[in-house]
Amino acid sequence: MSDHIYKHIQLTGSSTESIEDAVRKAIERAGKTVKNMRWFQVVDTRGHIEDARVMHWQVTIEVGFTLDG
Amino acid sequence: MSDHIYKHIQLTGSSTESIEDAVRKAIERAGKTVKNMRWFQVVDTRGHIEDARVMHWQVTIEVGFTLDG
Amino acid sequence: MSDHIYKHIQLTGSSTESIEDAVRKAIERAGKTVKNMRWFQVVDTRGHIEDARVMHWQVTIEVGFTLDG
Amino acid sequence: MSDHIYKHIQLTGSSTESIEDAVRKAIERAGKTVKNMRWFQVVDTRGHIEDARVMHWQVTIEVGFTLDG
Amino acid sequence: MSDHIYKHIQLTGSSTESIEDAVRKAIERAGKTVKNMRWFQVVDTRGHIEDARVMHWQVTIEVGFTLDG
Amino acid sequence: MSDHIYKHIQLTGSSTESIEDAVRKAIERAGKTVKNMRWFQVVDTRGHIEDARVMHWQVTIEVGFTLDG
Amino acid sequence: MSDHIYKHIQLTGSSTESIEDAVRKAIERAGKTVKNMRWFQVVDTRGHIEDARVMHWQVTIEVGFTLDG
Amino acid sequence: MSDHIYKHIQLTGSSTESIEDAVRKAIERAGKTVKNMRWFQVVDTRGHIEDARVMHWQVTIEVGFTLDG
Amino acid sequence: MSDHIYKHIQLTGSSTESIEDAVRKAIERAGKTVKNMRWFQVVDTRGHIEDARVMHWQVTIEVGFTLDG
Amino acid sequence: MSDHIYKHIQLTGSSTESIEDAVRKAIERAGKTVKNMRWFQVVDTRGHIEDARVMHWQVTIEVGFTLDG
Amino acid sequence: MSDHIYKHIQLTGSSTESIEDAVRKAIERAGKTVKNMRWFQVVDTRGHIEDARVMHWQVTIEVGFTLDG
Amino acid sequence: MSDHIYKHIQLTGSSTESIEDAVRKAIERAGKTVKNMRWFQVVDTRGHIEDARVMHWQVTIEVGFTLDG
Repeated sequence: MSDHIYKHIQLTGSSTESIEDAVRKAIERAGKTVKNMRWFQVVDTRGHIEDARVMHWQVTIEVGFTLDG
Repeated sequence: MSDHIYKHIQLTGSSTESIEDAVRKAIERAGKTVKNMRWFQVVDTRGHIEDARVMHWQVTIEVGFTLDG
Repeated sequence: MSDHIYKHIQLTGSSTESIEDAVRKAIERAGKTVKNMRWFQVVDTRGHIEDARVMHWQVTIEVGFTLDG
Repeated sequence: MSDHIYKHIQLTGSSTESIEDAVRKAIERAGKTVKNMRWFQVVDTRGHIEDARVMHWQVTIEVGFTLDG
Repeated sequence: MSDHIYKHIQLTGSSTESIEDAVRKAIERAGKTVKNMRWFQVVDTRGHIEDARVMHWQVTIEVGFTLDG
Repeated sequence: MSDHIYKHIQLTGSSTESIEDAVRKAIERAGKTVKNMRWFQVVDTRGHIEDARVMHWQVTIEVGFTLDG
Repeated sequence: MSDHIYKHIQLTGSSTESIEDAVRKAIERAGKTVKNMRWFQVVDTRGHIEDARVMHWQVTIEVGFTLDG
Repeated sequence: MSDHIYKHIQLTGSSTESIEDAVRKAIERAGKTVKNMRWFQVVDTRGHIEDARVMHWQVTIEVGFTLDG
Repeated sequence: MSDHIYKHIQLTGSSTESIEDAVRKAIERAGKTVKNMRWFQVVDTRGHIEDARVMHWQVTIEVGFTLDG
Repeated sequence: MSDHIYKHIQLTGSSTESIEDAVRKAIERAGKTVKNMRWFQVVDTRGHIEDARVMHWQVTIEVGFTLDG
Repeated sequence: MSDHIYKHIQLTGSSTESIEDAVRKAIERAGKTVKNMRWFQVVDTRGHIEDARVMHWQVTIEVGFTLDG
Repeated sequence: MSDHIYKHIQLTGSSTESIEDAVRKAIERAGKTVKNMRWFQVVDTRGHIEDARVMHWQVTIEVGFTLDG
């Protein structure tokens, strides 16, 4: 974490399985265009309901990546 | 999400297994009397400890359902 | 919960597996020196990323234990 | 506001026109079943976008009504 | 607190005497129709003033009750 | 915004028409005694209800004015 | 609460007795120079300790008064 | 809202007319370069004052758009 | 308050009587092991309910004490 | 801090040098008309940028002064 | 600040010297690719410790720049 | 930051010079009894005023240290 400059972005991932899986999918998708991601923080956990069952977990994260990596 | 009117309620579910399971149990139980639930948001995640082990996960959620569904 | 006096401490646990596992590890480790822990509340969920993959879940919890237990 | 006991509910109204209109629709709809509503507070203002245009304003309000009115 | 499912409601009580009395009145009044209330949390403390004197204490609480008690 | 010193005040305006009109009325009334007001921020939007209709919009704003203008 | 314009001020009162007494003293003192105070909201409750005993309760309140009363 | 991945951005729009108009202008301008915007949330409402009159409404919104739309 | 270094701890006290009494009990109990406590701040006020009556007030406070007193 | 009654005001100071200098300038300017200021709390730290350089630090503080000093 | 449309970004800068220097470095580095930055707001101030000494100040800022400048 | 378990503590440091110096003094003093401190976060910045001049900067920080270092 030394002396880097970080930029932050916010992402929302979605999963039918779990909170952890929704986070992983958001990071994996972002990795196609964003390099040097280092950390994330969960800022919101939501979901969709149909017939009294959870259909999707939707997790919003803030992600930091180095501008100088 | 078009032009519905939603009412919100708050529920706390409990599980010995996981955060996701506590959410599912709260929604399933509420479904016995509340129809047309559409979304939820996690607002608090707590738990009980005995002998340095987690005994219950207790997750509080806000749930929205349509008044006109 | 009757008429006890509680003291609170904050801990951060870490896991490569899940949010629940990070909480369990923090409580288990604290249990070596702190007795009579009764409840916890999740206050922050973060993690580390390498090559667009989650390497560690880091979960910060507030824990209450009785001073008179 | 004298010495009443109030109960609070949360509602989300929707409008294609304005924030004020979304609030009015939520209160009007709730009035079919809830009597003696006295005040509201706006707690969230959101909306839906299609083709870079606002399609719906969605405003969440907390409403207080007297239990003894 | 074992494995119950809780529902939360918000109430505002009023008293000319004290904060504690306003809370007690809100809970007592709600008890006429709500069973199995278990805990409350104070979320707002306000009051009315006339001629530089406090006329009413108005305290808003969140109350949890079991759906399965 | 250069190198001024600002003092902040809080005001609540009221209108039967709209949120914008309540803000304008608060600022206009304050202008009778406060000079050099430069900016405002909305901090609370509330209102009164009678017979399931909005009677007044009440908007609280923070206003900054220069002490050296 | 009709269509008044309110100005808000923040005060901290102090008492060796109780939270309520600290609020009353702040309002009473402010009443010497401020007319038409209508409501207050508690925003902070603190105190001083000596020899493990509470010496003063210090309560900060926001007070609203009409500019046009 | 199914299983998309969203990215969030923050924008501030400005209008001499109304809060709604400031939101619309921010979204319209962003639409020149950002595709697939789906929702927004108002996070701050401010404005500029000259001669005790509102000159501009400045509204900050968070906007979500799909990365996979 | 001059140039001391303070350490903060969080405590929850309990009382069947009042909020003030719950604070006093927490500070009195902590005084058995912690010296030089100087101030506290109330951070949460909760309680337990049985048969629509408040059984315990539970108040959480943050306490500051000097490391160099 | 004994048994005084405090009034709070909010100020924003500006400096080309540092955060501390912006605070000092706000307090010094306020001292021309406000007596008996005792403490401050930083509530916002902002600044202006030109050509990728910080031109002004703008720091907003809450200041408490005794009404009875 | 007239009638521009702003976009916001979040950055974290690092310095061994001071909070101000960490902010300057973040803005300077962002200036290589972002034009027309106008203001910033400090949202988090952290740092790293080794052998009981501060090694780096890490300051997170929100920066606004005009889309139409 | 790998897979450590952290414990957090809160400290307030004081300085007549600057915010940075108050943080350094708190960490230096804590270092006499706490080993393996790794990071801090500023949570409150306050100060004392006499004769319209800042006498002390008082900065409260949260500090994390490893339990297993």
